[in-house]
Amino acid sequence: MRKQVAIIGAGPAGLLLGHLLRAEGIDCVVVERQTGEYVLSRIRAGVLQQGTVAMMERLGLDARMKQEGLPHDGFNLADGERLIRIDIKALTGKQVMVYGQTELTRDLMEASEERDLEVIYQAADVALHDIESNAPYITYTKDGAEHRIDARFIVGCDGFHGPSRQAIPASVGQTFERVYPFGWLGILADVPPCNHELIYAHHERGFALASQRSQTRSRYYIDVALTEKLEDWSDDRIWDELSIRLGPDAAAHITRGPSIEKSIAPLRSFVFEPMRHGSLLLCGDAAHIVPPTGAKGLNLAASDVHYAHEALTAFFRKADNDAIPAYSSKALRRVWAAERFSWSLTKLMHRFPEDGPFERRMQLAELDYIASSEHARRVIAENYVGLPV
Amino acid sequence: MRKQVAIIGAGPAGLLLGHLLRAEGIDCVVVERQTGEYVLSRIRAGVLQQGTVAMMERLGLDARMKQEGLPHDGFNLADGERLIRIDIKALTGKQVMVYGQTELTRDLMEASEERDLEVIYQAADVALHDIESNAPYITYTKDGAEHRIDARFIVGCDGFHGPSRQAIPASVGQTFERVYPFGWLGILADVPPCNHELIYAHHERGFALASQRSQTRSRYYIDVALTEKLEDWSDDRIWDELSIRLGPDAAAHITRGPSIEKSIAPLRSFVFEPMRHGSLLLCGDAAHIVPPTGAKGLNLAASDVHYAHEALTAFFRKADNDAIPAYSSKALRRVWAAERFSWSLTKLMHRFPEDGPFERRMQLAELDYIASSEHARRVIAENYVGLPV
Repeated sequence: MRKQVAIIGAGPAGLLLGHLLRAEGIDCVVVERQTGEYVLSRIRAGVLQQGTVAMMERLGLDARMKQEGLPHDGFNLADGERLIRIDIKALTGKQVMVYGQTELTRDLMEASEERDLEVIYQAADVALHDIESNAPYITYTKDGAEHRIDARFIVGCDGFHGPSRQAIPASVGQTFERVYPFGWLGILADVPPCNHELIYAHHERGFALASQRSQTRSRYYIDVALTEKLEDWSDDRIWDELSIRLGPDAAAHITRGPSIEKSIAPLRSFVFEPMRHGSLLLCGDAAHIVPPTGAKGLNLAASDVHYAHEALTAFFRKADNDAIPAYSSKALRRVWAAERFSWSLTKLMHRFPEDGPFERRMQLAELDYIASSEHARRVIAENYVGLPV
Repeated sequence: MRKQVAIIGAGPAGLLLGHLLRAEGIDCVVVERQTGEYVLSRIRAGVLQQGTVAMMERLGLDARMKQEGLPHDGFNLADGERLIRIDIKALTGKQVMVYGQTELTRDLMEASEERDLEVIYQAADVALHDIESNAPYITYTKDGAEHRIDARFIVGCDGFHGPSRQAIPASVGQTFERVYPFGWLGILADVPPCNHELIYAHHERGFALASQRSQTRSRYYIDVALTEKLEDWSDDRIWDELSIRLGPDAAAHITRGPSIEKSIAPLRSFVFEPMRHGSLLLCGDAAHIVPPTGAKGLNLAASDVHYAHEALTAFFRKADNDAIPAYSSKALRRVWAAERFSWSLTKLMHRFPEDGPFERRMQLAELDYIASSEHARRVIAENYVGLPV
């Protein structure tokens, strides 16, 4: 098979890029290791920035999101005593959309056939070849047979563990990483959320987040030491801990219910530079990971896709040879900004084992400053809704 | 001797408080361990916030400051490549005044006789007594004789090492502290400054600060490991290092000259709570230390003095018994805000031995964000000029 662009990974980044390229008449294919059902079963982020929403609008794939998604005008920080509301609508003129990553992926997946976006699922052993040339190709096996796709460009949307980043020689890449000394214990339950907006809570016992997928499905998190085992956390114990950490006002409105999903996810900051090598471009988690505080992961993948789509369109439609080489630095500038925001919000809202009483007071003083300064709230709001592309 | 208020320490905080109380007709005395000449020989901070300037104006002691001080409309952050100007005048409507602490102290000192503010220098072995009662007193020796001053209140303006804070029983106080793994190597020279405004530089070799006392006297700093010895830093070596760290634009305008003072000062964040115990109030370094990044030390002492003066005036002139008990929490709220700003600017601009490549990129990303966001610059500016009292 010969295509202009071969995309590895049919998560939201890969599908979004595929649709955007197809809309420009660029010939592409998406290959995915898993089944479509498996991709949709992964519970992930749920807050979309306006820029991400705008990409779905542009594709005309926003109908269900507009119907079922929950536009939010703000969110809250809590310091154990009070809620500090960040009125993002008033401060930035923008909203965010609460709509599960799974739902977004489903919308993209369901539209692929009618829009002639070919997606090959259950493609095993995907490998990249000749990426430093102008004629790269990928190979994979499916149903026992070997397959090959030749392309002018390969785009790796295959996540942190995928083969794309690893295809770039170590000698040309640089890795930046921070691993955090805690994980997020998440619980999903079919109960109404305790608050109509998100609450990020900093409590002396640790972090908590009250979020939601819909008006009847809630997603809560607490941070726990990485040594904690899931089996030691009964639903009741999690609800008890949430009730303390979220503070009395939120706790009064928590509706408890049986968990339908429960997991502990580690937190990591990770960036790989460059995001392009030869004929290979990286998008999303293949190139970078943010801790989930601030909900930047999916939105950052979408902004990579925006830049990659722009560069590929310029190459194929305008014969612009400068756009592809500029992709990495353009995307990375935004990546570092989002990494910084996610890292700083993580530092503000969690307790770190190495921190003493002084550092704890610094966190409380920062929350107090945010509560008292509109400028400080404006800084958080403009980062939360996403800096200009 | 019997006074309404006995102030320990004739630095800027003690003298400022003494003048403010005298202007209200409150009877007070200042005792100082050193000679006046010694006090004036200590080279300290040089940037006054508008609130500090306003206190001198209110006392009618601003004539020389207005003539010799340099009002600044902004300052700069540098990231090794560029200057990022923080236009504090445009962003906050305020200015700061470059006027050495020594000069301010001299103005206060010279005015004390005509304004009937008694200052006792060379008072040795100052000790505080009965501070938990309504009749505290201090004792000291001078010229071989024992002296005693009875007062209704004692105010400790005697710095980090003075006896006042230590007079508060350990059981009622709490200490918050962070010691930084570097010191500031400062050089004072009679040369014109390299820039008309301050430059705080973050370079991969470390921090540098270009500041000034006047248009012909410059004060520069670089950070060095605490193990460094002053004798290993010739003037030439310091000028060379400054030329690298401040970046090419600033370096081109550095005028070198022989040092007239050179020293290494450690950096510390320190807060003692509460700032009042019984009849003793603490002001300035006696209760808290900030790292010098952001020039908050003297200004924070002045804001303590503002609150102490307000509380003492309410007590003596309005028979208000609630003002003194409220002093500590009022002053501390501002103290923590300034501690937070000084700590965060120190963290942003210095290299820490424990930081790896990721943290270094976080610093550069924050500087990049500050350069690109007016809201971010507004946050820095409003902290730099001093949050509202």
